[in-house]
Parts: sequence; structure tokens; C-alpha cells
Amino acid sequence: MLPCDPACTVVRDGVVDVGADGRIAFAGPVAAAPPAPDRVHDLPGILLPGLVNAHAHTPMTVLRGLGGDLPLMRWLQEAMWPAEALMTAADIRAGMLLGVLEMLRNGVTTSSEMYFEGEHMAEAVLAAGSRAVLAGAILDVPGRAWEPVTAAIGRWIDADGVRFGPGERIELAYGPHSAYTLPAAALAEIGAEARKRSALLHVHVAESAGEDADLRAAHGSVPRLLDGLGVLDGRVLAAHSVHLSAADVALYARRGVGVAHCPGSNAKLASGVAPLRALLDARVPVGLGTDGPASNDDLDVLEEARLAALLARLATGDVTAVGTATALLMATRFGAEALGRDDIGALEAGRWADVVHVDADDPAFATGLDAPDEQLLANLVWGAGARRVRDVWVAGEPVLVSGGSTRVDRGAAQAAVTAVARRLRSALPGQ
Amino acid sequence: MLPCDPACTVVRDGVVDVGADGRIAFAGPVAAAPPAPDRVHDLPGILLPGLVNAHAHTPMTVLRGLGGDLPLMRWLQEAMWPAEALMTAADIRAGMLLGVLEMLRNGVTTSSEMYFEGEHMAEAVLAAGSRAVLAGAILDVPGRAWEPVTAAIGRWIDADGVRFGPGERIELAYGPHSAYTLPAAALAEIGAEARKRSALLHVHVAESAGEDADLRAAHGSVPRLLDGLGVLDGRVLAAHSVHLSAADVALYARRGVGVAHCPGSNAKLASGVAPLRALLDARVPVGLGTDGPASNDDLDVLEEARLAALLARLATGDVTAVGTATALLMATRFGAEALGRDDIGALEAGRWADVVHVDADDPAFATGLDAPDEQLLANLVWGAGARRVRDVWVAGEPVLVSGGSTRVDRGAAQAAVTAVARRLRSALPGQ
Repeated sequence: MLPCDPACTVVRDGVVDVGADGRIAFAGPVAAAPPAPDRVHDLPGILLPGLVNAHAHTPMTVLRGLGGDLPLMRWLQEAMWPAEALMTAADIRAGMLLGVLEMLRNGVTTSSEMYFEGEHMAEAVLAAGSRAVLAGAILDVPGRAWEPVTAAIGRWIDADGVRFGPGERIELAYGPHSAYTLPAAALAEIGAEARKRSALLHVHVAESAGEDADLRAAHGSVPRLLDGLGVLDGRVLAAHSVHLSAADVALYARRGVGVAHCPGSNAKLASGVAPLRALLDARVPVGLGTDGPASNDDLDVLEEARLAALLARLATGDVTAVGTATALLMATRFGAEALGRDDIGALEAGRWADVVHVDADDPAFATGLDAPDEQLLANLVWGAGARRVRDVWVAGEPVLVSGGSTRVDRGAAQAAVTAVARRLRSALPGQ
Repeated sequence: MLPCDPACTVVRDGVVDVGADGRIAFAGPVAAAPPAPDRVHDLPGILLPGLVNAHAHTPMTVLRGLGGDLPLMRWLQEAMWPAEALMTAADIRAGMLLGVLEMLRNGVTTSSEMYFEGEHMAEAVLAAGSRAVLAGAILDVPGRAWEPVTAAIGRWIDADGVRFGPGERIELAYGPHSAYTLPAAALAEIGAEARKRSALLHVHVAESAGEDADLRAAHGSVPRLLDGLGVLDGRVLAAHSVHLSAADVALYARRGVGVAHCPGSNAKLASGVAPLRALLDARVPVGLGTDGPASNDDLDVLEEARLAALLARLATGDVTAVGTATALLMATRFGAEALGRDDIGALEAGRWADVVHVDADDPAFATGLDAPDEQLLANLVWGAGARRVRDVWVAGEPVLVSGGSTRVDRGAAQAAVTAVARRLRSALPGQ
């Protein structure tokens, strides 16, 4: 068992005792466990907490692979935005459902999303039995009739907390897209609203060198601009954060900003490499994001963990810059911290029983589950990755069993996405 | 069908007609195909040529994950070499067998190996029904009683060509480990022997900045040193080749040297990033190597293809630096070229019928097999990768069917490796 405590301990013969409330009553070695409960699952492989995808636009499964080898701004303007302008709420629900199923198979039980039509995304998450933090994207770009900011907020945040209250599978968040797609007044207003409700504010920051050149010239840096507007004072998740200065890193640390590091997307779009080691040294909580499946193009957080470590090692010339344990913690515990959540991301009493079982029947584990801790961790993170995820529980409920969803027909979900993709293709010019 | 011709064409409704000799009689669209043969497999997914792993030390499956987060030279000296000194021929056969099975599941039908006990590696390759180019590693390091170079060559190269003749599943090659583990006279002698037999010479070159600092100081560069000894005049496969100058790249091009690019291993060990775009621009044939499964830690060539593209895009700041098609060609056609082989790496009449069938029943292909060519390629390379490889043929023989070996019991192969790994652990100090 890999509880993903700060030391990334390997517990031999570990036990997770799930309470009737769906939270973990006990997690630790069998020798210290409370008396055996009525129902026991004896799992021969590795248990770890559900992984956290800190930054995704999951409904973009319907656009996967579109616009292949274009750089960020052309990819957005020529491929993504025209297609997204044609997407209906039902399309978004279909894309989200398939993506959530794919994430469960990759061991991801919580995704932090920024997209549109939040109610429909939530329906998909609840249908699959998963968990999400949903930020409604607020931005002003051509091709879509964007609602006024206040109306968008109103639709997303249910003031009564009835529909999506705290503690349930869905947490709502604010999603101002970025400083370069919104006026300063809107950023300030959204920041104030988020703080008033203690809500997470999820924003793209400094993803590529080109996108915000004007803003940087005027304000020194985008984090400084956001800070000047008060945006960084609340619970903030800064996605990407590639082009940061040392002063920006220090500012993040002072304001308690969390980062969703997206190494795969940033490399594929040639945007750059975030200063991961510097962020970790400054004790900024860094989680891992896949970004949208149209830009990366999968929803595999353990692949992002490997990439994060590889790129940090290359950037520093130091193999120890980001070790295997740190890579796994970014995919779990640190990801939860980056979202400002202490109820997921680790197998610890009191947290939600979001649990992943990795079957060790794979060449990657052939050196044995009795291998030394360091070797076992390496076999999971570098060798098997997510391919042997067999069973997943969310809040103690089995949602994936032997690789199959207990809730949703994956074939039907795939077919629905195929139909959406075909309709979008036929409607787009030049396809 | 993705025949992996130089333009990376996508053939809709493609047909591969396999001759009785195990070679491809026809590959192309069904409309141009010869009259239907007796036996027809109707395959609903994607067909592509068997992938080429241009640089591996596959028997190291028995050491996978060992020495986790150490830099290259310490990893070799403290973790690998002591363990390898304890490995028997049977251990190497067991490790090779499991690795070959793992590669087949990843769509890899040819691996270019450098290791010890070639006869036993060959047995494993033939048992699994795969294909390999086997170079016997020749080096002089502590911890193992290395044979004199000439004796090692004698054991590896069967002058009569009876046991491992050309055209069969196994090609033998010369494996001088590197310029920093062999004296110059040995390098020259091995080079001359290889040229005499038109054999491939497979050598590590310029992997990390530290390993060969003395040689570089004395000779300017390792490629220049090797060239001065006549080593680059024959068929040469230069693995890694990370720290190359522009002059070194030009020298490779002049001498027709092939490169086995190993982006994953080079990043994990913080060795650096090879100048991929410059090599491709100079028309140097570049294949992809996983390196040993103890350093990477898997045997997934499509993952290397993704990494190669990601790192080249970051190095150049240009999304088009290495496109999706080029990434796939490095895993197939270019890999064959790097090995000096024109009989594998593409679905073309006359080449061996080494064929991979990827089942499209995956969220990565949910946008439809009728998606535009560019999108379909992206869905394979960036989305699904190797996870949906279902069937593999080598020389027209089915060796993997529905994900299972037709030849070997994978469970038994895994158990054999577990036994080896446990014995090595118990014999190694500090484990």
C-alpha cells in the first residue's frame, strides 16, 4: 500500500478500512488495524489513493487529435474555438462522460476542470461515480456568444448549496480563463466573488511566451498583474505557470497559490517547461494536469508524473531533482493540496475512500512485490504506469471493477462521442 | 493501414497479402489488391508495421527499478554492474524472454540488443517468435571476468552462418560497448572485423557529459575518435549520441552512421537531449531505443516516439520540429534504416510480414476511424499508444493473438524473472 503520506511510505500488508460514510476509518499496516470488518476484499496488488488531475478540459475528448501539430495560439484560434462554438450541452456531457471513464481506468478519481456547461459536466461525473472540481470557463473570445460574467457566475454557483453542496462529489469553482482573455475589471470581480464564497479560483497563467506579451510588458508579469487585482488572495489554482520568474515563484509561495503543472501539454505545444524544482523548493503545492485531451492527448496523470520528473531532471542536469516518490506525490497528495483540498489525495483516516487497486500481474512488477520500497515505487511509476489499474473506489463505492465501469456502458459512451465528432467534422469548414 | 512509407500515408481499407515465404506480397488499398487469398483476416482496427526498438538491453528486466534515482555512472557502478556480475546465462535467457513478450505486447517485433550470452538471448527471441539484432557487449569493467575481445567475437559470430544465418529471425552484430570502456586498439580491431563481415557495429556514443571527458579533451569528440580508428566506415549504429557538435552530426551523415535515439533513458538519467532535429535535417537515419528496462523502465517504443517529439519541440520552441508522422516513422521505417535493414519497418512488398494490429476499441479512437488522416495518426501516437495492440505477426506467423502469446506462457515467464530477481537481491550486499 502506498498511502502517499509526505514521506511516501510503502506499507507492507496494508489495510484500508472504509466507514459507512465513505471516508477512511483506518489506513495502515494490518498489524495495527482495528478488528476485521464484515466485508473484506483481499487485493493482491498495490493500493494507492485515487489520482488527482489538477487541470483538464475533459469534454474535449470529442475533439481529440484535431489540429495536430499547431502551436498554441493557432491551435486555439483555428482548430479549437471554431469547433467549440458548435458544441452543445449534450456534446459536452457526452465528451465528459467518456473522459471520466478513461480517467477512472487511469486511476484518476478527481479531476479539476475548466470548461462550459457545468451542470452537464456534473451529470456525467455523477453518472460515472467519480469526483470533480468544476470551474466554469469565463472568457471573451470570438465564435461564441459569451454570457456576461455575473450571469455565468450565477449559473455556476448555486448559492443555496443544495444541488452541489460541499462534501459531495462535485465542488464548484470559478474559472476566469486567463489574464489575456478577460479584462482586468472582470478578473477583479471574479476574484472578489470567489473569496466571498471561499471558492477555488482556477486560472491559466503564463502558459506560453507569446500569449501575454503585452500584459507582461505593462505589468512585469502576469502573477504580479493578478496579485495587483487581488486575485491571488483567495484559494487559487494557477494552471501551467510555465514562464515564471523567481519573484513570481516567491509571490506564489507568499499567497499560497497552488500550481497545476502540465508538462505534457506544455511540451507538445512547445510552450516551455515550468520551473518545477524552484516551485517545490518554495513549498508551492504542485499537482499535475493532463490539460485537455485535444492537446496532450490522453488523460493519464501517471504519464504526466513521469514527464514532470524527466523534464525537471533535464532542466537541472540532476537525477535527484525530482525523484520517483515526489513524482507520485504530485499525482496524489500534492495535487489535492494544489486544489486546497485535504479530503482526497492520500489514504489517511478522515479522507474520502478514493482508492485505486493496481494488479501486479505485469512484467513491470516481475521483480516481485517483495522488492525494496524504492524499486517497487519505480516499477509502478516508471514501469507499469496506469496500465494495470483494475479496481477503483470513490467514497468507498466500487466504480471500476476488473477494469470495467460499474455504472456506465463504455461502448455506448464511445459511440456517443463518435457521433458528436462526426457531426462537428461535417459542420466545420475545411474538414 | 499505416504502411510507414516516407510520406506516412494513411491507406483506407488497406490489405496486406502475406506470401508463403513470410514476406509481404502486396500491401496497399483493397481496390488495387490481387485476387483474395484463401485465408482472410478481417481486422477492424489499424494495421502498422512491427515497431523497431533500436537500442535495448532487454535481459535487464530482471533488474528493473533497481538503483532508482542514481545518475548514469553511479547507477552503472553501484547498481547495475555488481548485479550483472551475478547473472548466469539462464538468468539472461529468462530476462530476455519476458522482455520480448512485453515488447510484442507493445507492438515491437525487432529489437536491437547489446548484452551478454547471445546464444541464450537468441533462444528467447526464437521461443517467443520475435526478431532481433543481437550485439555481444564487449567491454572491460570491474566485477566480471571479461573474455578477450577476439574470443568474445568468435563465440558470437558464427562464420558458417548455419545457426544464425542472414534472413532468419536473428542477425548477429558486434557490440563494442563504448570508447570509454575499451582501449583504442580493441575498437579498431572490432571495427575491422565488422567491416570484413559487413556486420552491424552497435556502440554507445556520447551518452552523458561526464563519461568521456578525458577522451573528448584528447580527441575533440568521441565520433571523431571512432572515425580516426576507422570504426565509422562500416555499418554503424551509434546509440544515444546526446552530446554531439554540428561537426559530429555532419560526420555521421558523411559516414552513413545510424542513430538509436533514447530520449526516455537520457532524460531519466539527466544525461541530456540529443540534437534530433539537426540529425534529421542532415538525413541521418534515426531510430528509437528504449534502452534497458532497468533505466527507463519499460520497453515501449511508442512512448519513446512521443518523448522524442516532445523534447525536440521544447529544444527548438517549434511545434513542427518533430511532427506526429515523423515520430511514428522513427519507431518503424527510420529505425530499420538506422540498423541498415530494408527488410523490416514498413508494410511494403518484399519486406518481412511483421505486422501489428491495433484494436480501435478505445476512448483514444472515439473520434472515429473515419477521422482525417492527421487526426487518426495523432489518436494512435499521442492517445492510445501501444495499449490497444492486440495481434502481432512476425514473418507472417501470428505470435500475439488477442494480446496473448501463441508461443509462451507469460505467467511462467514472469515467475521465472521473479525467482531470478529474488536470488540476485539475496546475493547483493545492502539489499
